[in-house]
Amino acid sequence: MKVEETQAERLVKELDFSKGPVTAVVRDWRTKEILMVAHQDQEAVTRTLTTGLMHYWSRSRGKLWLKGETSGHFQEVKGVLLDCDGDALVYEVKQKTAACHKGYYSCFFRRLRGGKWAVFRKKRFEPQQVYSP
Amino acid sequence: MKVEETQAERLVKELDFSKGPVTAVVRDWRTKEILMVAHQDQEAVTRTLTTGLMHYWSRSRGKLWLKGETSGHFQEVKGVLLDCDGDALVYEVKQKTAACHKGYYSCFFRRLRGGKWAVFRKKRFEPQQVYSP
Repeated sequence: MKVEETQAERLVKELDFSKGPVTAVVRDWRTKEILMVAHQDQEAVTRTLTTGLMHYWSRSRGKLWLKGETSGHFQEVKGVLLDCDGDALVYEVKQKTAACHKGYYSCFFRRLRGGKWAVFRKKRFEPQQVYSP
Repeated sequence: MKVEETQAERLVKELDFSKGPVTAVVRDWRTKEILMVAHQDQEAVTRTLTTGLMHYWSRSRGKLWLKGETSGHFQEVKGVLLDCDGDALVYEVKQKTAACHKGYYSCFFRRLRGGKWAVFRKKRFEPQQVYSP
């Protein structure tokens, strides 16, 4: 799913960046499983809408970030939802391999169980085989 | 779903508040529909875990906020997931009436369609009947 540059600009104008980057919740377009949560400035939303690939604002690195640029684990946008306040988006994506840099399909691989944060998912890949040079 | 005070404190210690409040993504425990996105400081997470009712940190009002305190639209916690970085949580909740103050079950009632943010859900209540004094 892609839109043209001018259309993307109009769509982005309806978002509220007054409190900083907006929140992007990313879910699998088929299973609705929540894959990750990240942040987007104006440029990241615009690039995502015009390229059809998820882009984020990295708070730790302080720069625009194309998900998959290092790992190859791109996220293809299939649908986008906007919340009432205009400061959160839900993206429905087709995820390549896995979303989490720790090797899990979803970053939410821990669940409150028996009073602990228990890992309840299996890894899809070994991080050192993907991220090492 | 509730945990004891000391257990909640241990669970909260594994979260990362170094970049500010953590992000709470709230979904319907049955349909997996995403209802809203909000923010939680340490106290909001602890209160949520010990009472079993969603509490948030209101960035606009600058205070702790029990969802439903005005509207009666409480959110009962049925499950909690934690992400890899410890700065985002997914809550599975049983939602009373509706999550959105604009009257929709989900705050994500708009979807990118035909180049516009189009409303695609129906209202569950009329806001002025719930929030007016």
